[in-house]
Amino acid sequence: MKKHNFSAGPCILPHEVFEKSAEAIINFNNSGLSILEISHRSKDFLAVMEEARMLVLNLLGLEGKGYQALFFHGGASMEFLMVPYNLMKVDGKAAYLDTGTWANNAIKEAKLFGETQIVASSKEANYNYVPKIYSIANDASYFHCTSNNTIFGTQMKSFPITTVPIVCDMSSDIFSRNLDFSQFDLIYAGAQKNLGPAGTTLVVVKEEILGKSGRTIPSILDYEKQIKAESMYNTPAVFPIYASLLTLRWLKKNGGIAAIEKINEAKANLLYSEIDRNCLFKGTANIEDRSSMNATFILENNAHQEDFDKMWTAAGISGLTGHRSIGGYRASMYNAMPIQSVQVLVAVMQELENKNK
Amino acid sequence: MKKHNFSAGPCILPHEVFEKSAEAIINFNNSGLSILEISHRSKDFLAVMEEARMLVLNLLGLEGKGYQALFFHGGASMEFLMVPYNLMKVDGKAAYLDTGTWANNAIKEAKLFGETQIVASSKEANYNYVPKIYSIANDASYFHCTSNNTIFGTQMKSFPITTVPIVCDMSSDIFSRNLDFSQFDLIYAGAQKNLGPAGTTLVVVKEEILGKSGRTIPSILDYEKQIKAESMYNTPAVFPIYASLLTLRWLKKNGGIAAIEKINEAKANLLYSEIDRNCLFKGTANIEDRSSMNATFILENNAHQEDFDKMWTAAGISGLTGHRSIGGYRASMYNAMPIQSVQVLVAVMQELENKNK
Repeated sequence: MKKHNFSAGPCILPHEVFEKSAEAIINFNNSGLSILEISHRSKDFLAVMEEARMLVLNLLGLEGKGYQALFFHGGASMEFLMVPYNLMKVDGKAAYLDTGTWANNAIKEAKLFGETQIVASSKEANYNYVPKIYSIANDASYFHCTSNNTIFGTQMKSFPITTVPIVCDMSSDIFSRNLDFSQFDLIYAGAQKNLGPAGTTLVVVKEEILGKSGRTIPSILDYEKQIKAESMYNTPAVFPIYASLLTLRWLKKNGGIAAIEKINEAKANLLYSEIDRNCLFKGTANIEDRSSMNATFILENNAHQEDFDKMWTAAGISGLTGHRSIGGYRASMYNAMPIQSVQVLVAVMQELENKNK
Repeated sequence: MKKHNFSAGPCILPHEVFEKSAEAIINFNNSGLSILEISHRSKDFLAVMEEARMLVLNLLGLEGKGYQALFFHGGASMEFLMVPYNLMKVDGKAAYLDTGTWANNAIKEAKLFGETQIVASSKEANYNYVPKIYSIANDASYFHCTSNNTIFGTQMKSFPITTVPIVCDMSSDIFSRNLDFSQFDLIYAGAQKNLGPAGTTLVVVKEEILGKSGRTIPSILDYEKQIKAESMYNTPAVFPIYASLLTLRWLKKNGGIAAIEKINEAKANLLYSEIDRNCLFKGTANIEDRSSMNATFILENNAHQEDFDKMWTAAGISGLTGHRSIGGYRASMYNAMPIQSVQVLVAVMQELENKNK
């Protein structure tokens, strides 16, 4: 039976990425060697790294604009630490927007380095909206925000205009929608949503913001050292980066971000329309802040839970259970999810309604 | 043509690891999903993580002895930083043995945290031996050494007896030879030699040494937080850990470390005997310190280089070029390399000798 994978991440990737990854594990580039056993300094892998870095900038429209794309280890959680280490000035401060769990984790690490101002927070409403009115101190070393909140199903639709560098955790919506990416000075994203499998983290940074913190930065955490080493300061995560390249190629071939954004909007509209129409369900996020990647919703009546869970499982749907901190359901509809999978979910929701008329 | 992969790392892994990895990328555990798209909190992946951690302790003979096995991001280079962060006491000091490039990189990071005493160094001889006579201050927070020096082809055959905790970077020889692993308090190893593909790092730590440094440790770098999270503080490198589990299973099935050690000794003896016998070649490492994993050697006469390079390439050998800091050749003979590949290399060396008689 066809599976419909709504997992929040690690998550669905294009099927051709699975096929080509599996091929490369047996015989990479027809070399007779596996991608798992080749040197990261081999000609073939250097080409992978170079193409992946170039394609990231190309897809984001950042070529020739002073940005570098880097592949790190560690997940976005490592960037929670690296951002203040590299950017927060000694005796300086940083401004953070608190939109949920991941923003909080980032704030926690920043506090180890200096004054961390929370410019606004939606904590009092269990993060069901994105604060929009706040001011950022002119002397902050940077402003940090989370563009999409996987757990709470909210997404920033616009970003502040400020003279301080903007740092954005785009782990769960990078490459999913068109933005003017040059408004950001540093973007980071754990690979395991729209970029590739778990095990590598993308950092896109405007070079001119680096080298100004006055801190001694441990080598492995230093963005400038990684730029100098062409994203190869130490042995990179070879396979996760290769699988990410395959995903980037798939996106490029299919029209890039502009084309995928249309499909993502269609998927989100389809599901949110059903959530709003079907009297058995209710969305949990503020309507204007709804994420096009992660739709969070609950049953109006928990008596239907057992039945609904059996029905979507029987339909081949997986990964629909909500995060423990919010409960209910979460449908993650990343780039690689076909609209047909959302149609299957909507059909199950309608079937539940019909059974309970 | 059969390939003989002598790459220093990432490097050869057992063929069944490639086959089963490729299978799991198409259909993991017959779930209809790829290992690349499942949640790290799914039942199937939790089982992978648990088995991998258990098998590490089992193979090292450390079960029930107060150790935890953890899979981190970042490579061994991240441990250069995490070790002092977690273990060097505020206002304390640490003792390091300098046996080469990687030891030096570890020393560099430790210096950011406090007094870093280099107890001995073989730098003056371009690291062609392992210093054996030195003393370790009783009040050092820990003693750090590198068991195998991939670049210089040396290996520690014994370890000091000391009252301070011993930390060992075993990146390039873990699981290759029997040692009393309980003499170490913390062992770390980048996966990409005998454990698995690049993209994850193993840390085996005796719990009782933690929590004593008096430092505030960033969450992602904190060994205790990772223990509490059962090696899942953030999304782990799912695929590299799964491929590592497959490699650990292969090792266990084939008799564990005791059995592989015999094969590794036979391979090393075969190659070193030829290096010593064949008048065209010369080993670069001190004989008693020779590594059974990485044999470094040079041509007595560089005029033979072009010919030799053509001959081993024609024989299907790859990855034999020495590290740029030492030159010459390096034959890495990790666990998964069959003795037949070493026989092919020896035959080429003999052929070169015959041609030049």
